[in-house]
Amino acid sequence: MGRAVVPEDGAGAGDRGAVPEDAVGAVTRQVLDGLRATGDDRLRELLTALVRHLHGFARETRLTQGEWERAIGFLTATGQACTDTRQEFVMLSDVLGLSMLVETLHEHGAPGATESTVLGPFHMTASPPRALGATIDLVGGGEPCVVSGRIRSADGTPLPGAVLDVWQADGHGFYDVQRPDVQPPGNGRGLFTADGEGRFRFRTCVPSAYPVPTDGPVGALLHATGRHPYRPPHIHFIATAEGHAPLTTHIFVAGGAYLDSDVVYAVKDSLVRDFTPTDDPSLAREYGVANPFRHARFDLVLEREAGEGT
Amino acid sequence: MGRAVVPEDGAGAGDRGAVPEDAVGAVTRQVLDGLRATGDDRLRELLTALVRHLHGFARETRLTQGEWERAIGFLTATGQACTDTRQEFVMLSDVLGLSMLVETLHEHGAPGATESTVLGPFHMTASPPRALGATIDLVGGGEPCVVSGRIRSADGTPLPGAVLDVWQADGHGFYDVQRPDVQPPGNGRGLFTADGEGRFRFRTCVPSAYPVPTDGPVGALLHATGRHPYRPPHIHFIATAEGHAPLTTHIFVAGGAYLDSDVVYAVKDSLVRDFTPTDDPSLAREYGVANPFRHARFDLVLEREAGEGT
Repeated sequence: MGRAVVPEDGAGAGDRGAVPEDAVGAVTRQVLDGLRATGDDRLRELLTALVRHLHGFARETRLTQGEWERAIGFLTATGQACTDTRQEFVMLSDVLGLSMLVETLHEHGAPGATESTVLGPFHMTASPPRALGATIDLVGGGEPCVVSGRIRSADGTPLPGAVLDVWQADGHGFYDVQRPDVQPPGNGRGLFTADGEGRFRFRTCVPSAYPVPTDGPVGALLHATGRHPYRPPHIHFIATAEGHAPLTTHIFVAGGAYLDSDVVYAVKDSLVRDFTPTDDPSLAREYGVANPFRHARFDLVLEREAGEGT
Repeated sequence: MGRAVVPEDGAGAGDRGAVPEDAVGAVTRQVLDGLRATGDDRLRELLTALVRHLHGFARETRLTQGEWERAIGFLTATGQACTDTRQEFVMLSDVLGLSMLVETLHEHGAPGATESTVLGPFHMTASPPRALGATIDLVGGGEPCVVSGRIRSADGTPLPGAVLDVWQADGHGFYDVQRPDVQPPGNGRGLFTADGEGRFRFRTCVPSAYPVPTDGPVGALLHATGRHPYRPPHIHFIATAEGHAPLTTHIFVAGGAYLDSDVVYAVKDSLVRDFTPTDDPSLAREYGVANPFRHARFDLVLEREAGEGT
């Protein structure tokens, strides 16, 4: 090289002056300024809060470049683990309690209304419409069970024609979409329409506790935090009825494992139900189940939609 | 159905009592408790801060279920847009200013040290080692340019053998990995080792301003926020030398477009350099470039690693 490389002037390198805290604040202010042209007011509000919290998180923890790289790698892997039948980002939201928080934020808390809980990552295919009393267990082998109840408005009025979307894992703890090799599509799922008095009933097997899938990034996160990956035994419901707010909820099997440590923080005491052992051959015949069976009763009470009265 | 559906007991539905704010706080407390068993202290600290901010964001904005669903969809699409040659999550971090914030957090601010800026998403392949004075422009057609300078320690000592990793977009604003059809691998990239006096020099073309890729989720976000997707013309550097903290930075072309509105907020005044028009046939011959050419001078001043002295 020799003389071909000329000496440098070093302009700008000798007079930085800014202390890091000022420089850090300047970055955040620039980014917040950059959001001002957002046309949609709500989007601007959301992104402004997001930037404040995201930057606040990095500033408080003094997040390092290496940690940032691991976070980028984790989020990338989470997105890439998603398929038509697996939603790793919903699982991440679930195990961080964000899903439960969002659900809880929008409960109106009307007296007597059924509490909501998380949607979870497995409501990803349409439940097949089924007749009242039908079974959602297309495979068999589990402990036979009947679930019945009534859907009412908060003032006690039954809601004829209310629709109940039901889904659950099988007796081995897997949803149909997870085990297409052994479960036909729609196994453990059903879309029921309540009768003229708001009543419903269906047959199934008693659900099992199960681990959320642990072979992806969220499983690695649970492992690193010393948390088990299990959900207590439960059945999912979404109830909809005209003039009422849709209700997303579960029932949990009383006495089931992991009720005190649900990996997605979704248990509410009011949603725990006895799955009562029932030995009654004539009732079993009437319900179309083997005797003995277990019977869970669950009334759903929906809140009127805002602007629709009390 | 008729009498087969028995009346329900409604246990637990009538005595909720909890007002939403209490219920919301309870969710966050449960999740924070769930992090206590994290074995690694730093991971526990990071996740605790993350949950506080994530929940704080949702609580302050009263994030709705529909907005949460859009966010899940956005993050999923961001992960799925990542390939071996595209890092959409890095781009997301960049346009939200997080990358620049993390970089800025760890500047020590030693007097005279060269300021750092973001890594960006395109440092994804190893730069080919090249001799001092070589060109990184394997395609040609752009405005010829020489970049030269010296790498020194903060006390002024030259750093012989310091390594400079360089990468830039071509004259059309694309990196090699984005246009494998028209750019050979390694175009616009080079790994140079400073001479015995810490000096370096290489040939290239003057970089162009360019938009970050806009055909994915991050492009949609920029569009929704009314922001243009452009970065001002720049050349990337990572300088490493024994006993010194690695420096990730750019130089920006003085007078280039978008210097005041870089989409990733990475411009620092001290990093803007004149790319001086030079009409000197004999110097051009010596440098191996066509005359006239432009000449950018850039001295890099590295900070000593912690524990290595000043």
